[in-house]
Amino acid sequence: MDWQAPDADHATRVRESFALQGAMQTLGARLETIEPGLVTISMPFAKAFTQQDGFMHAGALTTVTDSACGYAALSLMPADCGVLTVEFKMNLLAPAKGPAFVCEGRVVKAGKTLMFCEGTARVDGERQSRTLATMSATMMVMPRRDREDG
Amino acid sequence: MDWQAPDADHATRVRESFALQGAMQTLGARLETIEPGLVTISMPFAKAFTQQDGFMHAGALTTVTDSACGYAALSLMPADCGVLTVEFKMNLLAPAKGPAFVCEGRVVKAGKTLMFCEGTARVDGERQSRTLATMSATMMVMPRRDREDG
Amino acid sequence: MDWQAPDADHATRVRESFALQGAMQTLGARLETIEPGLVTISMPFAKAFTQQDGFMHAGALTTVTDSACGYAALSLMPADCGVLTVEFKMNLLAPAKGPAFVCEGRVVKAGKTLMFCEGTARVDGERQSRTLATMSATMMVMPRRDREDG
Amino acid sequence: MDWQAPDADHATRVRESFALQGAMQTLGARLETIEPGLVTISMPFAKAFTQQDGFMHAGALTTVTDSACGYAALSLMPADCGVLTVEFKMNLLAPAKGPAFVCEGRVVKAGKTLMFCEGTARVDGERQSRTLATMSATMMVMPRRDREDG
Repeated sequence: MDWQAPDADHATRVRESFALQGAMQTLGARLETIEPGLVTISMPFAKAFTQQDGFMHAGALTTVTDSACGYAALSLMPADCGVLTVEFKMNLLAPAKGPAFVCEGRVVKAGKTLMFCEGTARVDGERQSRTLATMSATMMVMPRRDREDG
Repeated sequence: MDWQAPDADHATRVRESFALQGAMQTLGARLETIEPGLVTISMPFAKAFTQQDGFMHAGALTTVTDSACGYAALSLMPADCGVLTVEFKMNLLAPAKGPAFVCEGRVVKAGKTLMFCEGTARVDGERQSRTLATMSATMMVMPRRDREDG
Repeated sequence: MDWQAPDADHATRVRESFALQGAMQTLGARLETIEPGLVTISMPFAKAFTQQDGFMHAGALTTVTDSACGYAALSLMPADCGVLTVEFKMNLLAPAKGPAFVCEGRVVKAGKTLMFCEGTARVDGERQSRTLATMSATMMVMPRRDREDG
Repeated sequence: MDWQAPDADHATRVRESFALQGAMQTLGARLETIEPGLVTISMPFAKAFTQQDGFMHAGALTTVTDSACGYAALSLMPADCGVLTVEFKMNLLAPAKGPAFVCEGRVVKAGKTLMFCEGTARVDGERQSRTLATMSATMMVMPRRDREDG
């Protein structure tokens, strides 16, 4: 899908919002790609975010994939809007083993009120990177004046 | 639903597995309740896990609610089994504002191979606690010999 | 949850919309309960809607549970609004064996733009009715002037 | 993904199971493509399956997309296995307007016990066919001896 961003400064807005996320810093997450409707974020393996078998917790991949989907959606919103996650489903296809991970979010449908996104989490740096998880997510466009609703 | 745990030591197994999760320690999560088919885990608010508006990241609530659902399922499994999350859906009903949160996982159906769970995340300590999010999750029973499959 | 319907004629609006659904008539579905935020619809077993093992197709239960959730949401909307399903997840807990089924939809959160609902499908008329399936669904409030968006 | 079917007669098994589904016949659904891990099924518009605005009910698209995903999974199973839907999520991107629809199911991950599938529903016969809905589904491999479990 070839999206047009309505706001020329969309990448700046994504970077500024990302920088405000304590969770992204704590996870060591880094914005890798910002295109209209497509955002990728990388994250290193960290013992601090493992589950009981020593792999990355599905919740850590979910946190970063949710952010990637949210920022993919934000990149297609007018300048005065924020993004809110309505819901997501995460399908866990393989244990999150690997030295680093890359989570991608893509906009599949962009409405005035809702955006539908798909995400993936993969092992980073592998030539034939395995898909560890897939996400389907609904994002809401929040004009600043409405931020208190839901 | 009144479940019977097939293994008398189910609470010990849940505690031991929980202690192995780096993610739970990093989030400051604490096991609060372990009953057959029902587990609750609390977590304090932490700036280290916020999203761009200063509330807890949906991914942090998801991480803990997924663990609560997983351990609710594990509590109903035979002693030689581990638990694997197959998929979950998280519905975000309200921003995660509050000093602390409590995530609950309950088993709704316990099969030999799969268990279906429902979870909630709430603000902790409120008299009329608001539901911040609801989860529906599928968990897999992993006999030790099969752990490598999926 | 004790909901107040903003429109005194909500039950009439639900009945009128239901009557327009070719799918409900074809499935033999009947509106059983209409309360603010809660709708139940029954449906007989029919060979015309079976899957390969002779049970009701999960899609038939989904169709009716989706309608129950949608009408539960509609019952809490202002009079000039329609309802649109954004997404749902259906968890299939047991094969749909039985002479008749009853699908329930309940509103869990009612926002100005979105409503979050939970649904169940059960065998009808059983004293201890088994839950065959559970649904989690997001519904959108569609003011008449906006019906073309999405 | 290039899948290998373990059973050379997989297409025959899919066709035989499809023929047993009352629901597929009633909906006028037709098997269009059977490849290892990929099945498409078409369905005409029918007033008998409309929702309140005169479009096809989301439940009708769901029924056929679920079957497409289930048969995509069955095509990769050993000969003595049946398929059971564990859960699916359906995201409704656009109203189902059109003279006919085509639903596709693809296997994304094939495990010994579970298969994860993705599906789409589109308007049939359009040059630039719009995606009306996307599905993510978990299917279970049911060896004949275990059919009664769940």
